[in-house]
Amino acid sequence: MTNKALSLDPDRLLPVESRTRAIARALYKEVRDLPIISPHGHTDPAWFATDAPFGNASELLLQPDHYVFRMLYSQGIALEALGIGSGGESVDPREAWGLLAANYYLFRGTPSRMWLDWVFAEVFGLDVRLTAETADLYYDTITEALARPEFRPRALFERYRIEVLTTTESPLDTLEHHQTIRDSGWRGRVLTAYRPDPVIDPEFEGFQANLDRLSELTGEDCRTWQGYLAGHRQRRAFFARMGATSTDHGHPSAATADLSPPEAEALFAVVSAGRATPAQAELFRAQMLTEMAGMSLDDGLVMQIHPGSFRNHNTSLFERFGRDKGADIPVATEYVRALQPLLSRYGNERELTIILFTLDETAYSRELAPLAGHYPALRLGPSWWFHDSPEGMRRFREQVTETAGFYNTVGFNDDTRAFLSIPARHDVARRIDCGFLARLVAEHRMEEEEAAEVAVDLAYNLPKQAYKL
Amino acid sequence: MTNKALSLDPDRLLPVESRTRAIARALYKEVRDLPIISPHGHTDPAWFATDAPFGNASELLLQPDHYVFRMLYSQGIALEALGIGSGGESVDPREAWGLLAANYYLFRGTPSRMWLDWVFAEVFGLDVRLTAETADLYYDTITEALARPEFRPRALFERYRIEVLTTTESPLDTLEHHQTIRDSGWRGRVLTAYRPDPVIDPEFEGFQANLDRLSELTGEDCRTWQGYLAGHRQRRAFFARMGATSTDHGHPSAATADLSPPEAEALFAVVSAGRATPAQAELFRAQMLTEMAGMSLDDGLVMQIHPGSFRNHNTSLFERFGRDKGADIPVATEYVRALQPLLSRYGNERELTIILFTLDETAYSRELAPLAGHYPALRLGPSWWFHDSPEGMRRFREQVTETAGFYNTVGFNDDTRAFLSIPARHDVARRIDCGFLARLVAEHRMEEEEAAEVAVDLAYNLPKQAYKL
Amino acid sequence: MTNKALSLDPDRLLPVESRTRAIARALYKEVRDLPIISPHGHTDPAWFATDAPFGNASELLLQPDHYVFRMLYSQGIALEALGIGSGGESVDPREAWGLLAANYYLFRGTPSRMWLDWVFAEVFGLDVRLTAETADLYYDTITEALARPEFRPRALFERYRIEVLTTTESPLDTLEHHQTIRDSGWRGRVLTAYRPDPVIDPEFEGFQANLDRLSELTGEDCRTWQGYLAGHRQRRAFFARMGATSTDHGHPSAATADLSPPEAEALFAVVSAGRATPAQAELFRAQMLTEMAGMSLDDGLVMQIHPGSFRNHNTSLFERFGRDKGADIPVATEYVRALQPLLSRYGNERELTIILFTLDETAYSRELAPLAGHYPALRLGPSWWFHDSPEGMRRFREQVTETAGFYNTVGFNDDTRAFLSIPARHDVARRIDCGFLARLVAEHRMEEEEAAEVAVDLAYNLPKQAYKL
Repeated sequence: MTNKALSLDPDRLLPVESRTRAIARALYKEVRDLPIISPHGHTDPAWFATDAPFGNASELLLQPDHYVFRMLYSQGIALEALGIGSGGESVDPREAWGLLAANYYLFRGTPSRMWLDWVFAEVFGLDVRLTAETADLYYDTITEALARPEFRPRALFERYRIEVLTTTESPLDTLEHHQTIRDSGWRGRVLTAYRPDPVIDPEFEGFQANLDRLSELTGEDCRTWQGYLAGHRQRRAFFARMGATSTDHGHPSAATADLSPPEAEALFAVVSAGRATPAQAELFRAQMLTEMAGMSLDDGLVMQIHPGSFRNHNTSLFERFGRDKGADIPVATEYVRALQPLLSRYGNERELTIILFTLDETAYSRELAPLAGHYPALRLGPSWWFHDSPEGMRRFREQVTETAGFYNTVGFNDDTRAFLSIPARHDVARRIDCGFLARLVAEHRMEEEEAAEVAVDLAYNLPKQAYKL
Repeated sequence: MTNKALSLDPDRLLPVESRTRAIARALYKEVRDLPIISPHGHTDPAWFATDAPFGNASELLLQPDHYVFRMLYSQGIALEALGIGSGGESVDPREAWGLLAANYYLFRGTPSRMWLDWVFAEVFGLDVRLTAETADLYYDTITEALARPEFRPRALFERYRIEVLTTTESPLDTLEHHQTIRDSGWRGRVLTAYRPDPVIDPEFEGFQANLDRLSELTGEDCRTWQGYLAGHRQRRAFFARMGATSTDHGHPSAATADLSPPEAEALFAVVSAGRATPAQAELFRAQMLTEMAGMSLDDGLVMQIHPGSFRNHNTSLFERFGRDKGADIPVATEYVRALQPLLSRYGNERELTIILFTLDETAYSRELAPLAGHYPALRLGPSWWFHDSPEGMRRFREQVTETAGFYNTVGFNDDTRAFLSIPARHDVARRIDCGFLARLVAEHRMEEEEAAEVAVDLAYNLPKQAYKL
Repeated sequence: MTNKALSLDPDRLLPVESRTRAIARALYKEVRDLPIISPHGHTDPAWFATDAPFGNASELLLQPDHYVFRMLYSQGIALEALGIGSGGESVDPREAWGLLAANYYLFRGTPSRMWLDWVFAEVFGLDVRLTAETADLYYDTITEALARPEFRPRALFERYRIEVLTTTESPLDTLEHHQTIRDSGWRGRVLTAYRPDPVIDPEFEGFQANLDRLSELTGEDCRTWQGYLAGHRQRRAFFARMGATSTDHGHPSAATADLSPPEAEALFAVVSAGRATPAQAELFRAQMLTEMAGMSLDDGLVMQIHPGSFRNHNTSLFERFGRDKGADIPVATEYVRALQPLLSRYGNERELTIILFTLDETAYSRELAPLAGHYPALRLGPSWWFHDSPEGMRRFREQVTETAGFYNTVGFNDDTRAFLSIPARHDVARRIDCGFLARLVAEHRMEEEEAAEVAVDLAYNLPKQAYKL
């Protein structure tokens, strides 16, 4: 298949039916070239601080992307052979790339395939498909390009017309890379977000040491409840000064609690002593979501909650390779009872914004849209993670819109560390949203001019407003 | 956008693909003008008893419709500003209407928008869209029209070609309005349904006083188990004499129980003494569903069960504004184990009809269709509440039909207190069902003449038969 | 409607939109005539051993098919009147057939209707629709045909171009029919599969006697843990020698366990003594799944797990008519925590294949696709049972593919005892998969030549590889 063309059809992902497609095309034209607002992601701020060139094709596109290597792993390809983990260092990156190329058919029908094809075609100008035969051509083309100035991080950031890009850091992070960016005179807007899981989750690796580090950084005694809260307030203020407009919370469940101050203090004493049972750890995380909401009401940071992932499901893989190796698996997630303590206390606050994500699609129409269609403080994040995909986005709009409308959602965010694919991801979302809107127009459920307004809101205005950017 | 037309396209909601649309149009033509059977709803019988004119636009279309004001509330508009609750009395209804008008874009893609647009265009003849600029035009047009005889409740009932309309009353209701209607000589058929939650749910506000009131009304000692059951039987008979053909049960879960008579009596003693724990309250509700099914087998009333809503989720809002303010949120609902006690006892009875509803769509294909496709007593109610919507209806048919067929469902009911929108709601259901059937025909899964028969059954025959009307 | 044609349109089930349909037609042409791989089902090996003629129309198509009679039962037709159960023997099979015919409209929109229509038209050459008027014509045509040689089991097997057909037997089965087939010189490939539920599930009817029978058959003392495991190993080896390539496990839940050997031995002592509590029975089943996976790693048998059915829900029906009367109802099924013990132990084994099925569609995108898209040992079985249907298959592909791809699924299997409909069932799957692929092509998400390759893989190569056939 060496000579087969790699094609990115201009109508890709738009509805096929001709009247609907015509409407979708017109809508897409309105949003295609809007700047990218990327208010939630996991790129490395060091890239933009140092502006050092990216390495080779495997190092850039294969080894850090667990969407990609998990699929290869699922079909029996060892992570070591892909250059991942100890034992992987000695692997020739070209060989690793060859494994991806030879097995690229596994990605048929997946979003990874679409994102990668976009990067291959649009960024690197490749015009034949990736196969075993074209593996070296790809490897060389990409690796050579990466050495050129126009493929450095800042150049790509500008070429991609990213208006703002947010990374995610621990409260223990000194934000030195963000400081470097700010000091550099470069005009790219790269912000941080406050992700306090390492100092909030008693079950996080290193939690006890993290409390000590928080005390050191803040000068507060973070072994006392009041000192601990003050430590958070201080770091949040620091993050805000460094440009952060949001916090981000990745908890196993959506549980929240609203304990009395003495109860909270007593619970923290147990947690801080390293004696929390799993139930107490869960209750502490629950209480801390409510505390964080209270602080957000004070300091204006938008709050993001991402629950429902069973982390590191594959125990033996985790022991050998560590976190983020494709074995985080979603679980059924309950929101209605879980969020009530927090929402009863703060849900009616118009000045507060809580953006809620789910990995459990069954909650879209049953729980999330009804909650977001009622509580002033609540907005729904886009279809997330495994659902950051054409079918996933379609189901999100189909199941959410009738109850919550469009304006209780916050448009798209990419949630990625795969920097090169960011425009491809936003482009997928814009196409799918335009296709959904086009169907509403074609079925006479919305006027075309309204749909055009909504399309622009979803692609640009809503994320900008929701994240206060 | 003042001059933009308000359009109700004759093809709205029909499939876009041209062959399918042609089939759908033909099917829709068969059902479009059928009379309305509305066997389950929450309109006020006083409207038809007194035939007094409705008030102004806000009083009719905004303030009583929690679908409408919950969306405005979710975007930060205070209920008081809409004229709802204490503090709301002093609000000029025209101002409240202006808030709806200015924020009408929030309803894009929602069924409320479709229903309201139908009312605006078809009932009030408005031909421009509702916006801030047209707010006064709307308010005046609607409010003036309501003063005219042809907009009185009975006139609209006739104009809407409603063959039968069912309201819902507590066993403690004297049904005086229904008596007035019957005595009036007016030929509109307005029936009641027996909704005993206030005297069955130990956690209902005023439950203890309600038991006393039931004793007074019936002359039975409803503080004894036998007297309590006799009280129900007596009120059911009274409701049946007044035209009722059904009962309706809105429980937090679908739990049923089949206790021995001594167990049931002992449980009632605890409940009647006001000492029921939450678990005992749940068990009592569960037992009473089975008791009600037994009574239905005796007196022929069709039984409706609506489980799965977490009522009054927003505690502070409930304390200030009371029930039904848009904060009832669905929860995951289990049916298979929950219904087994009742179905094991009565599910094989061919003379019994139990119509089951859900707010949890995940049960459609997994639990409800398999149960309804087996038990002779069981039928499925239409997609309900937040799922009374185009996408909701589509998913219902797609997920239910293959296992339960069409004839274990009961067609459409509107479940609304928004009287003016009843024809719009039935029209949406007819269009969506015709669209679904048209797809089956276009995919050669059904013959067109069969589809036409099914379309008429869903729109008219099935609800009439299922509710014994 | 006597004279109405029974039509099987060549485009049935393909997408209606013309461009997509053209692509789907081309894809379908590639797979339409591929041989049938049927690696999982419940046909009776005696049919192929004795090659005796099937009986009359009712005995063949109505009485053994609980998909068919459950629908009739759900609408109030007594099982006895259909000739099922005691009291049914005296029913004239022609009368029973007449009831099916008169109520055939109930099956509109169901897969049973499609499968039956295919059998009527393609196998028996009927060209008018089944109605009360044509009941006798149908009954006579089918019953007379069955007496002819070309309608005997082996002749149909060959006419259907079945390359391999797998039945399911208990470890206690002597496989005499399979031996007869092998000895007969007939070249049809009919294999068995090892289904040990009767000797693994302590709650199975006759479990204790089954343990004794297992001891007798194997010469092992299956009242000791080691003897019991050895008994399984021996019977698995016997099944493998008789051609089996797989095992099959139908458990109430997906629970697995990984007990230490002493814990397992102690648990078996309780189970073997008939003293297991429900929780212990569940734990034993859970442990045995892991034991079976370990044995599969040794002997190479592919492992199938089918959890999530609440068996015999209708207690009174079960007491009168026994198992498999249409009252097995799916329940919500959790996989992530349930499978972790087994997957942590064996999930990374590339030589092991575990094929997982579900009756709970909500797990497709949330749990199953993420698990199968990571663990090398795990593959997803097709949409199963109530979801073995056009809409069910569509949802499976839409919800699974983006995360797990196509190659972590195993193509189609029919899971049926309704032998005559096997080609119809495979044909439905091929049409739906081609339709799904055609949409991906039409939306420019896949190239047409790739789709053709995937279509052939799904219809033929993947089941053959996954089941080692």
